[in-house]
Amino acid sequence: MNDYRAPLRDMAFVVKELLGLAQISRLPGFGDATDDLFDAIQEESARFSEGVLAPLNRSGDLEGAHLTEGVVHTAPGFKEAYDQFVTGGWNGLTGPTEFGGQGLPNLVGAPVEEMWHAANMAFTLCPLLTRGAVEAIRAAGTPELQARFLPAMVAGRWTGTMNLTEPQAGSDLAALRTRAVPEGDHYRITGQKIFITYGDQDFTENIVHLVLARLPDAPPGVKGISLFVVPKFLVRADGSPGERNDVRTVSLEHKLGIHGSPTCVLAYGDAGGAVGYLLGQPHCGLELMFIMMNAARFSVGVQGLAIADRAYQGALAYARERIQGVPVGMTERAPILHHPDVRRILSGIKARVEACRALAYHAGQMLDCAHAEPDPARRAAAQARSDLLTPIVKGFCTESGVWAANEAIQVYGGMGYIEETGAAQYLRDARITTIYEGTTAIQANDLVGRKLLRDGGAMVRALCQDVRDSLPGLRAAGVPESIPAALERAVLAAEKASTHLLASAAGHPGAVFGAGVPYLHLMGWLVSGWLMARSAEVAARALAAGTVETDFYRTKIATARFYAEHGMGQCDVLCATIVEGGASFDAMAAASF
Amino acid sequence: MNDYRAPLRDMAFVVKELLGLAQISRLPGFGDATDDLFDAIQEESARFSEGVLAPLNRSGDLEGAHLTEGVVHTAPGFKEAYDQFVTGGWNGLTGPTEFGGQGLPNLVGAPVEEMWHAANMAFTLCPLLTRGAVEAIRAAGTPELQARFLPAMVAGRWTGTMNLTEPQAGSDLAALRTRAVPEGDHYRITGQKIFITYGDQDFTENIVHLVLARLPDAPPGVKGISLFVVPKFLVRADGSPGERNDVRTVSLEHKLGIHGSPTCVLAYGDAGGAVGYLLGQPHCGLELMFIMMNAARFSVGVQGLAIADRAYQGALAYARERIQGVPVGMTERAPILHHPDVRRILSGIKARVEACRALAYHAGQMLDCAHAEPDPARRAAAQARSDLLTPIVKGFCTESGVWAANEAIQVYGGMGYIEETGAAQYLRDARITTIYEGTTAIQANDLVGRKLLRDGGAMVRALCQDVRDSLPGLRAAGVPESIPAALERAVLAAEKASTHLLASAAGHPGAVFGAGVPYLHLMGWLVSGWLMARSAEVAARALAAGTVETDFYRTKIATARFYAEHGMGQCDVLCATIVEGGASFDAMAAASF
Repeated sequence: MNDYRAPLRDMAFVVKELLGLAQISRLPGFGDATDDLFDAIQEESARFSEGVLAPLNRSGDLEGAHLTEGVVHTAPGFKEAYDQFVTGGWNGLTGPTEFGGQGLPNLVGAPVEEMWHAANMAFTLCPLLTRGAVEAIRAAGTPELQARFLPAMVAGRWTGTMNLTEPQAGSDLAALRTRAVPEGDHYRITGQKIFITYGDQDFTENIVHLVLARLPDAPPGVKGISLFVVPKFLVRADGSPGERNDVRTVSLEHKLGIHGSPTCVLAYGDAGGAVGYLLGQPHCGLELMFIMMNAARFSVGVQGLAIADRAYQGALAYARERIQGVPVGMTERAPILHHPDVRRILSGIKARVEACRALAYHAGQMLDCAHAEPDPARRAAAQARSDLLTPIVKGFCTESGVWAANEAIQVYGGMGYIEETGAAQYLRDARITTIYEGTTAIQANDLVGRKLLRDGGAMVRALCQDVRDSLPGLRAAGVPESIPAALERAVLAAEKASTHLLASAAGHPGAVFGAGVPYLHLMGWLVSGWLMARSAEVAARALAAGTVETDFYRTKIATARFYAEHGMGQCDVLCATIVEGGASFDAMAAASF
Repeated sequence: MNDYRAPLRDMAFVVKELLGLAQISRLPGFGDATDDLFDAIQEESARFSEGVLAPLNRSGDLEGAHLTEGVVHTAPGFKEAYDQFVTGGWNGLTGPTEFGGQGLPNLVGAPVEEMWHAANMAFTLCPLLTRGAVEAIRAAGTPELQARFLPAMVAGRWTGTMNLTEPQAGSDLAALRTRAVPEGDHYRITGQKIFITYGDQDFTENIVHLVLARLPDAPPGVKGISLFVVPKFLVRADGSPGERNDVRTVSLEHKLGIHGSPTCVLAYGDAGGAVGYLLGQPHCGLELMFIMMNAARFSVGVQGLAIADRAYQGALAYARERIQGVPVGMTERAPILHHPDVRRILSGIKARVEACRALAYHAGQMLDCAHAEPDPARRAAAQARSDLLTPIVKGFCTESGVWAANEAIQVYGGMGYIEETGAAQYLRDARITTIYEGTTAIQANDLVGRKLLRDGGAMVRALCQDVRDSLPGLRAAGVPESIPAALERAVLAAEKASTHLLASAAGHPGAVFGAGVPYLHLMGWLVSGWLMARSAEVAARALAAGTVETDFYRTKIATARFYAEHGMGQCDVLCATIVEGGASFDAMAAASF
């Protein structure tokens, strides 16, 4: 019942029919990304995810990772799976070609990553973090640093980590205390980092930590943070791992979920300081951190929808199998899928999964365009859209993942509460996604502060205009009218809320940032609802053109309609909360609690 | 940080000022329930809950209950706490006076029960189930059965369980297979029951199982179910436990939460049949089951708000202590309580807890009136209101509990995901409340089928009229206009949705029952929002009368306003989903998944 089946047809629909892989493969550098290659990769990835990663998901949860005498041992089977992962060339799928990667676009990489996360989220965190570290070294490393680290990291022979958090410095990086003192061509790093995902593992012969720290002359606050490359083993001239560096795993966290992923407390410099290499310029660590963080945020958004789909598949399988009661309108006992409320829950999750999938892949597509679009104006527009979408993808898809995993449990009734069923694990695993790589509130701060207010609403207006421009096409294709009607209300709500926040930022900053998460949700519903509406349009046109896949396309329309009629109404409420709820927000002062 | 403090002032506000304990204590049999007695009980209960039950909550989660050679061992400290519970006379607080109970009204019992659940939900499930069993035996037991079992059960010297579920019969009790064969003055019971909360324990010398089973001549379906009293040890003539009955604990479930509560698989009749005594008439077990079930449903609703409050208290304590970043509008680093989004989350949970508390206590009050009101018309009206409120309390308060526990984790950031913090346990524990004693969908079926449709909407109309009648008073008291405005919209939404469901029941039963859970939420927001509005009115009048507790009453108004402006908007969306979403619901046929 907890088998995972990659939803290949749904993925292909989004990539090829809704978003258009063909346009991406016309961009410089992405010529390989043809429909045929996509199909071949999808099939292979499905085989690997279903056959190798998924079967280790429950055992990884049960066994977890352990720390014995300073060494992390991952759950049984994880190392062998990682070996296969590297051998299969999966780690470098979207990695830079100059360091051995395949350089494929995110539009191809996102569905593959979705499969891995859905199959085994705890496992896939390891390559997720490696990828972020690769992006940072690629963006700012000297040629020498790149040559020393990137080939092994792109191949996955070495993994990467992100070391940001310290006990007193979580969301508030200004409070960082880890220090870096120059010594010849390197630095000596001293300090303690917590919540380090795959901070140690037994997969690979080396681990490359990217560590935020302060130089002795650093100004206070976030403008005094620098980023360092700190390998677990120093690298010899021949490229092989040599002497052990001064970094030690102190403990592993005992977490609600993702037990298969070792979350480490790392101590740097117990024996005089770990050797580290400055990445980029001194005191410019925050900017670089955002490069790796944004890559990770996008991936965590994919993770959110992946776990939602996995939870959906489990609940659906149970609902098809479990016979209970005589459903309304039937005369005999039947699988609970026929009970109205079970159908309502599954419809809601299915629609949300598909909406989040479209949203996340679209964001990946915008990243591709921002990277490869030759026309400067189009490239800039894609970059702006990508910047706008990143916090929305991260926030909305992960909140959707937690919501979906929670809803899915309800389908099982009492069995959902029993760990053996597996449904509870999805909720426990999903629950971290709205927290790490920046909580939903941090995403909302980014969205409101850097994306909405900073440019006076220009990026948001451009998005809303694109939504409006799509309305005639939707109606011309003959999708059910509730779909464009809901979208029109949603864009109005988004415009109204945006205008209000822009107007209130100076006078009521507290209420504006207090409305950040509702605003993020509103934008999430808007963009995902827009893509669902366009899915319905694509499907309506396919049906009009006489496709043989009538059931598939009719269901696409029905799902988009369900999303419009049972989901998109949230936009009005969120708008009202944002626009009319400021005074009651202010009234709940700190003394009220 | 995980201390529990009973919110005595808030509880007293609801019981005395909002609902009016004085009116209940005027009813026959409730004369003892004075304000003074209430205060005294509250203080004692707080001391016991905070000092004895709460400190065992985390250790109970970690240690759990274990089955060794057929015997259940509860977590360390649980038995001693239970002894204190019984010695303190807590078990019989609302129990029947003729069997040693104190016969106090539910309006007094509900806040006490809230404290126990908030302090230690896994522990308190044991008396919760005992109470349901007491109600059933009291309602239908022969004088001899009552005399044999009730004194020990009311005192808590013996506990009670509810044995409904079988592997093939969960929500669908028609599928029950457990059999009862007559043998002299008793029956022999054979079958397997699962999910039996406290099906075995080491607290007491006997356990009284209430078991649904079929007689040999039983008609099929739910009309062939009878209810039996099956003690773990047969009772001797002198009332002491004698020979072991033929019931055996096969295993304990491995659950997401409530680890301190042993959830048993029980086998009846491995050695020829357990001795059981028929309760009430043959084939009338379903009706009796509803008596104990309704008592349990009310209590589980209280549990939902209790766990929400416990989660709130933990998150608030963390938010007051954890310093991180410089909040918007401030110039120095400050506790995260000052960050707008943390304040938004805590405001939302606080308002929902208070709304659910008012809703649950009000339902308790209606139970009291239905029991003791001497005027037949008023008694009938109270019974109808109580019947209407039970599924709403169970469904809405437990869904709120899960929601609140999930939101609370977000306040902690990464620390919320670490089990040592304690926040994750509240979510794991809360997650069962929307499932057991009837899932939210089962509550919604009850609400729509038995409470709305059966009387053609009369009960709902009476409720809506009461809400409408309260509007002038709210406005006269000068509460912020958004409060009555939101309530007016909510009652309109409830009326519109009710009318739609009544009109559609015959033609589109699937869509009607598919709208059940949204309808339950709508009614939950309506009734809780009504009580919050009336809280604001009480507070406004107290302020106008020159109370010295100005901060307390101002916060009551601010909280009600926050609920109105940031919560009640859901009513419009839910109404739209119900009224306009039927076709898209139907379109998602079983083949769509």
